[in-house]
Formats: sequence, structure tokens, C-alpha cells
Amino acid sequence: MDLNVLFKKAKAAGRELAQLPAERVNDILHAVADETLARTGQLLAENARDLARMSPENPLYDRLKLTPGRLETIAADLRHVAGLPSPLGRILKHVVLPNGLDLKRVSVPFGVIGVIYEARPNVSFDVFSLCLKAGSACVLKGGSDADRSNRAVVDMIREVLARFGVTPDAVTLLPSERGAAAALLQARGYVDVLIPRGGSALIRYVRENARVPVIETGAGVCHAYFDRAGDVGKGAAIVTNAKTRRVSVCNALDSLLIHADRLADLPRLCAPLRDSHVRLYADEPARAALKGHYPDSELEAATEANFGTEYMDYKMSVKTVASFDEALDHIARYGSGHSECIITEDREAAERFLQAVDAACVYVNAPTSFTDGAQFGLGAEIGISTQKLHARGPMALEEMTTYKWLIHGNGQTRPR
Amino acid sequence: MDLNVLFKKAKAAGRELAQLPAERVNDILHAVADETLARTGQLLAENARDLARMSPENPLYDRLKLTPGRLETIAADLRHVAGLPSPLGRILKHVVLPNGLDLKRVSVPFGVIGVIYEARPNVSFDVFSLCLKAGSACVLKGGSDADRSNRAVVDMIREVLARFGVTPDAVTLLPSERGAAAALLQARGYVDVLIPRGGSALIRYVRENARVPVIETGAGVCHAYFDRAGDVGKGAAIVTNAKTRRVSVCNALDSLLIHADRLADLPRLCAPLRDSHVRLYADEPARAALKGHYPDSELEAATEANFGTEYMDYKMSVKTVASFDEALDHIARYGSGHSECIITEDREAAERFLQAVDAACVYVNAPTSFTDGAQFGLGAEIGISTQKLHARGPMALEEMTTYKWLIHGNGQTRPR
Repeated sequence: MDLNVLFKKAKAAGRELAQLPAERVNDILHAVADETLARTGQLLAENARDLARMSPENPLYDRLKLTPGRLETIAADLRHVAGLPSPLGRILKHVVLPNGLDLKRVSVPFGVIGVIYEARPNVSFDVFSLCLKAGSACVLKGGSDADRSNRAVVDMIREVLARFGVTPDAVTLLPSERGAAAALLQARGYVDVLIPRGGSALIRYVRENARVPVIETGAGVCHAYFDRAGDVGKGAAIVTNAKTRRVSVCNALDSLLIHADRLADLPRLCAPLRDSHVRLYADEPARAALKGHYPDSELEAATEANFGTEYMDYKMSVKTVASFDEALDHIARYGSGHSECIITEDREAAERFLQAVDAACVYVNAPTSFTDGAQFGLGAEIGISTQKLHARGPMALEEMTTYKWLIHGNGQTRPR
Repeated sequence: MDLNVLFKKAKAAGRELAQLPAERVNDILHAVADETLARTGQLLAENARDLARMSPENPLYDRLKLTPGRLETIAADLRHVAGLPSPLGRILKHVVLPNGLDLKRVSVPFGVIGVIYEARPNVSFDVFSLCLKAGSACVLKGGSDADRSNRAVVDMIREVLARFGVTPDAVTLLPSERGAAAALLQARGYVDVLIPRGGSALIRYVRENARVPVIETGAGVCHAYFDRAGDVGKGAAIVTNAKTRRVSVCNALDSLLIHADRLADLPRLCAPLRDSHVRLYADEPARAALKGHYPDSELEAATEANFGTEYMDYKMSVKTVASFDEALDHIARYGSGHSECIITEDREAAERFLQAVDAACVYVNAPTSFTDGAQFGLGAEIGISTQKLHARGPMALEEMTTYKWLIHGNGQTRPR
């Protein structure tokens, strides 16, 4: 199949969607929610055919699986997006020049947003709803493991769009073969921005091959630094929440840095982690401090490879630092620019940490597990950007728009 | 030379600059202005050695040339940047959650900004001053034609920085060989954003080879559409100003679209262009309408190649469209997303044009020549972005920053 035909249709759809009134967008989202519930049986049947090809032992199995309860959550999420304010048409700046020229910087849709993701059919709903709300067409490249599920979801959405007299090309699911991803990465002039959602191998592939603008998401190597002036009670609660709330998400804690003067408090800081059987990779001073207070079977000597690793598991490294500045240097070297945290009662240290750490989200006395669009009050989230261009941290509807300058004149000209 | 050593130093300098108080930044800019005037003789001598290697017939010769007057303008520009408000530390959002968690989205420096440009030594001053003001280190790759001039400028700036106790690595001029540009394009992890400033060949080279995030600038294929309801007086003034104010800049007009019903007015619309000897490439109906009213020697039959071309010269294509929608389609096909204009007294047509045209700056009854950071009241400009990610249209100090989220907590944790 010539994928350029699909990209061209998506671009034309983007131009059409830019004119779609906000109320119509919301009506469509509600209609897709209704249809999702009405077709529960059919969607689950297609999903079952994908599941039949995957071992239930595969860690992706649970993410691939749809259930009646999950479809109800998806429908509720669609209605939630419908209820959010439109991110379009916001006047970001307004300047009137002395000659009367009137300039407005206004938020507008991107046009076409491409998303590459892995075997999670719920992402197809997410991406479609957020892109439609942001006035853009979307081009989806899902994992081949979820192809029947995704196909059923997208066919259903396209039927609803057609019923509303809106072009079905507002959402396009690319064929599941690998060549389609490569074509999407090269689709300059058609795809305005590409967002990869998935593991580090996917992100690396996109980074090295994309010729369209990319917003990188995902990789989170997150640190908590327990400062010389840290409070142990807060520290234990923060470390535990950041590490164990959900280990498979990018905001989960990967490394605890502890000031050498506070090594005696390390056992209390780590005590709650025992209940979750968190495996600790500790450097020598930290291991000595933990010895006898933490199960030997869960306590290992750290190697260089334990730092800068995103674990996505009940595992964490522990590093002793001689000073505040050593903590900053360690984070600058090993962090991924996602979320970093300091635990301290020293206000000056807190402010220095906030200023010096170069990451999307920098916390004082709160866990990195808060890094999330809904938690931040942004409404919904398409991903967490770890780059600095355009969007940083949780990306929601506003970050899924661009802007243009609208200028009203009356025959003014610019002097030479 | 191992360029990675330079990139590492630039990154370290970026971390240092992020902490530099705004007043110190401004003091440095004034000191560089003073030093520029004090060293006029030396700077002109180095510039003369560059000029000696270039033919005065070369169109780049004038851009390469420094004069006492130009150095005075440069010094005044440095002082102007010093006087602008700092783009850093702006609170872009502030959210307090019900649990007391306090989240602020604050503008911060990128870190390291790379700029590739051609033989214009004044750009070295421009880029340095805007990057320093925006809290970032800059890595410059100038044209080899201007290498002695650039080297003299950058050495001088580095001396001034050192005098202030600030790392001279706040500005780095890469060696002039071609391999340095390639290294800069690949400097992931060191260069946070790369801005190419120059012609379409440079932009294409950067687009196809960059592994660091890029903001594309420059190419402007700009149209003016004279609508069925256009005013001839305004139209003639707008077309003339947009075409002839300065032909060598990206906001200059390249193509006039005229509604077929208004062909009889085409001679009056184009009349002022005769004085500047603007060469017109007109389609058949337009040529017939102009015949006898415009010098034959400056009137040619348009070919397909005349549309979508950025002329940078006293040349312009003229295209007849049968309808408003045909004008939109033509612009969507041939425009570069820079600046587009409609001339009309029909308010509805004006609003439809503003909404439908996908470009950084869309004008009603005003010329594209206004597309400029200083004209827009943005203070200064590092380039005009023709992409949609991060910055669109004139890029000034605010667009040269990113942001981060600063979160103050008191031991709050996120529920499961």
C-alpha cells in the first residue's frame, strides 16, 4: 500500500478538523463513548483474538487485555475529555502597534499528529480523543500484537465520524508491518509532530530515524536526594510512595542518594521498602549502614550499571554522596531530565536544588509519583516529555497545539 | 581537535549561566558594547583579511563587511538587549492542589543553543547577546568566509566574560572546517536546540542530518491574495511594500494571487512595481491583463517553476484564481508556512482566510514585510521559525527559553 496516500488524506483531514466547532468535537467524543459500550462484545471478541496469540506470562499481556470494566473506564475517559475546555483559540498575546496594526498570537491545531505505541489498545482511544479535541488528525502506528483490537477500535471511531459528516480520516491506523513505522518517521510535510510512546528501544529507534519533528516521551531515571537536613519521616513516606506506588511507570523512583552524614538514618528511610521486597543495589557505605536492617537477600553491592538505569521494577540503587554538590553532579550525569526530588528542611538547599537541577519536574519534599497530567490539573495527558523543545513534563491538550499570528491591518506599510 | 571537549565545556557553562543574576548579564552586555567600540580598529583589520579573500562582486561581500558605523549599530543593539526584560523566571502556570502541593511552571534557560550561520559577523554578536540574556551558552558555527572576523569577535567577548569572572565557554566558536558542523548536528546530550540561519541549502543540510532538536528558520515563500472584494489602493501599497521594501529578506513577497473577477485592476495593482523594475512571471490571464500596462521587457509567461519559489530578488509570480478556495489551495500547496496575506474589504472572507491558512503569520490588509520580532514588539529576534514545534514566526527571547515545573511539598504522597 502506498502510505503517502494515507498521509495526504490525514493532512486534508487536519485542514477540515481545524474548522470543526468545539461542541461538535464533544458530541463526537460522547458518541464514541456510547458506541464503545454498545459494541463491548465485538471489541472484546477482537481483543481475544490478539490475546490468543500472546502468552499470558508475557508482561505485555495485561496491558493488551480489554475487559468490560476497562471499556467502561475508556468510555468515562472519553466523556471526561469532552468536558475539558478546548485548547484552541486562546489569545496568547495581543499587541496593537502605534500604526493601528493589530496582532494576536492564537493557539491553533498542529494539523497531523503521529503516535507510535506498543500493545495497548486503550492508547488508541486516548490518542484519538486528545488529538480530536486539539483539532488535529492523528496517524496511529500501534504494536502488531494489538492489531485486531486497534483495527476494531479505529473502524468503530471512523464509523462514528462518518455519521457526524466528519471525514473518517481524522484517525488513521497504519498497517502493522514495520515498514509503516519507517514511513511515518519520514513523512515530512504531512506529519507535523510525532510522539513515540513506549520503551527505550522504541524511543531510540524514533530518535535515530525521524525526519519529522519529535517529542520524546517516556524514559524516566528518577532520583530522590535525602539531604543532610532531611526529615526521616517525610523521607520514608516519599521514597516508598515514589518507588512502590506503581513500579512500571516512568515517574517511579530508580535511585536514592543519601548524604553521608545521614547514613545512620538509612535503615529507617528504607524500612517500608522491605514490605514490597524492593531489591536495593547499594554502594559500600550505604550497604554497610543497611546491613542487618534490611534482608540480605534483597541487598546487593551496586555496580556502575546500577546508576542511570530505569528499573520499571521493585529495584532501586542507593548512592552515598559527600555533599549537596555531589548529589547535583550525580543527577546531572545519570538523570534523564524527567523528575527529581530533594528531601530537606533547609529552605536554602531546597531553592538551590530547584534552580540547579535540569529536569522537567523538580520536587521538594514530595515524591516523583506526582508527575502526571491529571495530577498537575492539566486534565489529561498524552505523555511526559523529557525534551526541552515545545513541551516539558506532562503534555496535555494545551501542549498539543501550536499557534499562529493573526494580523488585522488597514493598508499600513512598513517604513524602509 | 576533539569537539566533544568543547561541547562538554559549553554544557558546563550553561549550568553556570543558569545561576547568573540578570543584572550581571546586562553589565556584561554593556561591557561587550564598550569593548566593541574600543576595538574598532582591530575588528576592522581582521574583517579586512576576510574581505581580501572574497570578490567584491560576491553578493555575500556586503554582508561580510564591517564598518565603524556597523560596529556602532552592533554596540547599540547590545545595549538594547541589555535593556530588555529578562525572559527567565516567568511563572507560566501556578497550581495548588487540594493536598497543599504547590506547582509552578517557570521559564528557564535551555542550557546550550547551537547556531549555524553564513558569512555575517554581526550574527555572532546577535546570537551571543540573545543567548546570554536567555541564560544559555551558545555554540557558533559561522561561515568559513568570515572566520577571522568571527574569531576576533568571539575572542573579545570571551575576554570580557573572564573579566567578569564568568566562564568564557558561555560562547564557543567552532573551527571553520565542515566537519565541525556535522559534529554540532550530532551533539546529542550537549546541544539542547540548534537554530540554522541561512539559505535553503543550509536548512536542508541541517534537516537531513541533525540528531539534536532543530528549529527551522528562514525559507519564506510568501503570497498576497487580492480578493474579489479587495481595495486597489490598499492592494497596490501592500504589494509594493511587501515586494520591494527589502527583496533579500524572508518576509518579502514572492507571489501575487488575483481573483479572476478583478483582472481589470491588475495594472493599477502592479503599477508601482515598475519603478523598481520588478520582473513579473504571470500566468496567461494575468499577462493578458498587464499587456501594454507593464513593460514587455519585465513581463514573462509563468511556468510551473515560478510558483513556490523564494526569489530574494526583484521578481514575483502572478497567478489568477477563479475563487477564494482556489487561492487557499494554491497557498496550501506552494506556501512555506511563513507569512501570507489577503487584501479584501469582505470581513467574512478575511476571517475565513485567517482561520484556514496554515502559516506562522497571516495578514489581512497589511504586507508580509511586518513579519519581524522588533516590529511585533518582541524586542529582538534570533530568526523566524517556519515550523510548528516550540516557536512559530518571529523568535525572540521568550521563545529562546524552555520551562520546568517546580513543586513544593511537605511530605504529601500520591494515593494508589
